[in-house]
Amino acid sequence: MKKLISLFISLIAILNLSYGQFSDEDAFMLKDIHEFALKDSKVYHWLDTLCRTAGPRLSGNQASYDGLVYAEQVLQSLEIDRTFQVECQVPRWFRGQHSLDIMTPFGRLPVRSTMLGNSLGTDGKHISGEIIELQHLDSLDNTVKDKVVYFSRPMDPGLTQTFHAYGRAVDQRVYGPSRAGKFGAKAVIVRSMASQIDTIPHTGVTVYEEDATNKIPGIAISTFDAEALSALLTKGPAYAHLSSTAQPLSDTTSYSIIAEIQGSEYPDEIILVGGHIDSWDLGQGAHDDGAGCMQSIQVLETLLAMGYTPKRTLRCVLFTNEENGLNGGRSYAEYSNANNEKHIAAIESDAGGFTPRGFSCTAHEDVFIEKLTKLKSFETLLEPYDLYIKKGGAGADINPLKSQKGILIGLRPDSQRYFDYHHTAADNIDTVHPRELALGGAAMTSLVYLIDKYGI
Amino acid sequence: MKKLISLFISLIAILNLSYGQFSDEDAFMLKDIHEFALKDSKVYHWLDTLCRTAGPRLSGNQASYDGLVYAEQVLQSLEIDRTFQVECQVPRWFRGQHSLDIMTPFGRLPVRSTMLGNSLGTDGKHISGEIIELQHLDSLDNTVKDKVVYFSRPMDPGLTQTFHAYGRAVDQRVYGPSRAGKFGAKAVIVRSMASQIDTIPHTGVTVYEEDATNKIPGIAISTFDAEALSALLTKGPAYAHLSSTAQPLSDTTSYSIIAEIQGSEYPDEIILVGGHIDSWDLGQGAHDDGAGCMQSIQVLETLLAMGYTPKRTLRCVLFTNEENGLNGGRSYAEYSNANNEKHIAAIESDAGGFTPRGFSCTAHEDVFIEKLTKLKSFETLLEPYDLYIKKGGAGADINPLKSQKGILIGLRPDSQRYFDYHHTAADNIDTVHPRELALGGAAMTSLVYLIDKYGI
Repeated sequence: MKKLISLFISLIAILNLSYGQFSDEDAFMLKDIHEFALKDSKVYHWLDTLCRTAGPRLSGNQASYDGLVYAEQVLQSLEIDRTFQVECQVPRWFRGQHSLDIMTPFGRLPVRSTMLGNSLGTDGKHISGEIIELQHLDSLDNTVKDKVVYFSRPMDPGLTQTFHAYGRAVDQRVYGPSRAGKFGAKAVIVRSMASQIDTIPHTGVTVYEEDATNKIPGIAISTFDAEALSALLTKGPAYAHLSSTAQPLSDTTSYSIIAEIQGSEYPDEIILVGGHIDSWDLGQGAHDDGAGCMQSIQVLETLLAMGYTPKRTLRCVLFTNEENGLNGGRSYAEYSNANNEKHIAAIESDAGGFTPRGFSCTAHEDVFIEKLTKLKSFETLLEPYDLYIKKGGAGADINPLKSQKGILIGLRPDSQRYFDYHHTAADNIDTVHPRELALGGAAMTSLVYLIDKYGI
Repeated sequence: MKKLISLFISLIAILNLSYGQFSDEDAFMLKDIHEFALKDSKVYHWLDTLCRTAGPRLSGNQASYDGLVYAEQVLQSLEIDRTFQVECQVPRWFRGQHSLDIMTPFGRLPVRSTMLGNSLGTDGKHISGEIIELQHLDSLDNTVKDKVVYFSRPMDPGLTQTFHAYGRAVDQRVYGPSRAGKFGAKAVIVRSMASQIDTIPHTGVTVYEEDATNKIPGIAISTFDAEALSALLTKGPAYAHLSSTAQPLSDTTSYSIIAEIQGSEYPDEIILVGGHIDSWDLGQGAHDDGAGCMQSIQVLETLLAMGYTPKRTLRCVLFTNEENGLNGGRSYAEYSNANNEKHIAAIESDAGGFTPRGFSCTAHEDVFIEKLTKLKSFETLLEPYDLYIKKGGAGADINPLKSQKGILIGLRPDSQRYFDYHHTAADNIDTVHPRELALGGAAMTSLVYLIDKYGI
């Protein structure tokens, strides 16, 4: 059945081509968009400045506001019709200091570790416990009481798409402390969510579920150290000693930034491009997701520079608080719904500033096949840039817009290097290639142009 | 017309799908090939060892033989039916020492430079001359007599495919010294063939044409220094002072290595995978082209590990002397033609160890449309890996096989970073990502499997 649908869609796409729906003008426009990206766009310069001057932008910290202010300055430099803010409350979190010592049968194992985001600390005390290694959340039982649970399931290296491997492993980080706490564990150690064996620990959100009574700390160790720990645990018992001053702070007010160019013919049909301006607090948030924010601005920069007059309303949205709350995405959808808006399409870039491979998309089931078929028809024009259109996830910030029944689209860059840097102190501007970054923005601009011109 | 052909080909591909030419077994095989690449292949380890133990492998130098010996050891470790060598004469070249001083109206401009490969030196003497900047070979005339010609045309940054930009700029390096010499110039400076502005000089072959009587030295400067020189030349005259001990040495004997698994049903139909084992002498030749060699071995490694019995004869060929002579490719074709062999397909990997995007192919015009159509039919199985099949170049080493009327195929990795390293001291193992490298080999293995099973 899947094959039949895909055959049907391909046939439609080809028939559209043979019917000559698209003009040479479109092909030239896409060429110009890519040329502008590679020769004239300021996207890399903007990201460089964001990374170097604002730095790690965890929701509610000073850098997060510095980042918002800088991004707004960039947007204003483009002389956009209208920029505005949508406010929301965001959680704040204090990482503080921590220490993790692991004693094995052969002595102390030095590990490179980082507290999981939103984790509670130890109130300045030291926690000690025998390490119990598990691979799955559902292996938890009462035997972990008073122990330190170590979740060691790797991201599957055999999957070609690293995001698939991430999706199948990340439950250990997100729910590990919450679930292990219910069985009386003292703390949770998690193998970092990384595609390779290296010495960099990865943070990322952990969530205490509503029924969590025993909220225990969570900490990640690098994949190299995880391999060492697992190997040593086959030789005899090991013990963890943990202290941490991490703690949640009171919520505060933040905001998402919206820049808008009103449509000349269908101002009520909104096409959104966006990324999230917040990041984790270890690195500069270059790939995650300064890249997506600056690429979204690049879309407007490019179309303005070309003197293109959009028929539909184009919006660039820089969401706050994706990493530890999603309150930026939620509050934007609430604002939009309250104003009876209709996003006919939303494109999020939140998978790194690497060479774009294509787009994945989703929509409300009532409209999905229709929208996907239309979107696939653009593939003939995207083919010179080797960009595909596929079914798949779109983006965490734009998902709340699904009820508006537009199409939700995620930019899909090459994923091989993403989890070398994701949520680490290495997610810095030096890992971003200027051409790869700009090509991602060019891919988004191309799709926005086609959706604006032909509707969806 | 192009559109019609492409429509026709796409229709054929789709009809093949709907006719169910391929089985689920094929899809599982491709999945297993990719999983093996990412989890079990030794390809990265082999490349690492080649780079670190042999190092820069310019034809005829000791390292080039060390590399050949190591590669043969790797092949023998796979317990391949038969390995043999095809000998050829190769030129040798001695880089020696050089100095380049550029005096501008404001004083000395420090430049990072490297002699072009195969360039003559200055016989230990100093050459001096006023610098004349030109953008094109056909701008040369008698006014360059006794001057130093500076070819400054950049690789066009606006092209999405860096190889296209390279192809349009590299005539300055290949023919600059030969052509400028005819007009009495003393030496040639060339802007490095690089996609970005940086401080790394790129070598690469320069060719003295048969009618060249005045063979003058050629030297490349980094793109950053080229920008500076061009800017300063607008302020007044500048002068170059060059000395170099570069010189050609006598030819010597080298060889290409061939490893073969005989076909069980059609032993006379050969499918070749290959790369070139030689490199320039500045870096380790990691991307260019240690990667392609080790990926070609990975093809055999993978199929052997899976217990796959090829119907056709599979050959892995590691060509010698691609960089400064192409004698490995030529002598292999001569050997093959003398034995009345028929290569039904040849796949070369010589564009870097980056994430594969697809394959480009060419063939003798008598058979091209037929072969391309057949090859395109495999796209439905390659689609989960986002690999395309397109018309285009294949590879310098396999081109001499065109008269055998098989299809010639080039692996096309993502090209954005290739010309950051190409022919420089930076082309080292630390710039190769293990997953990206292995995926390139998996793409080649997948195509070899399909061609072997279904013919072409």
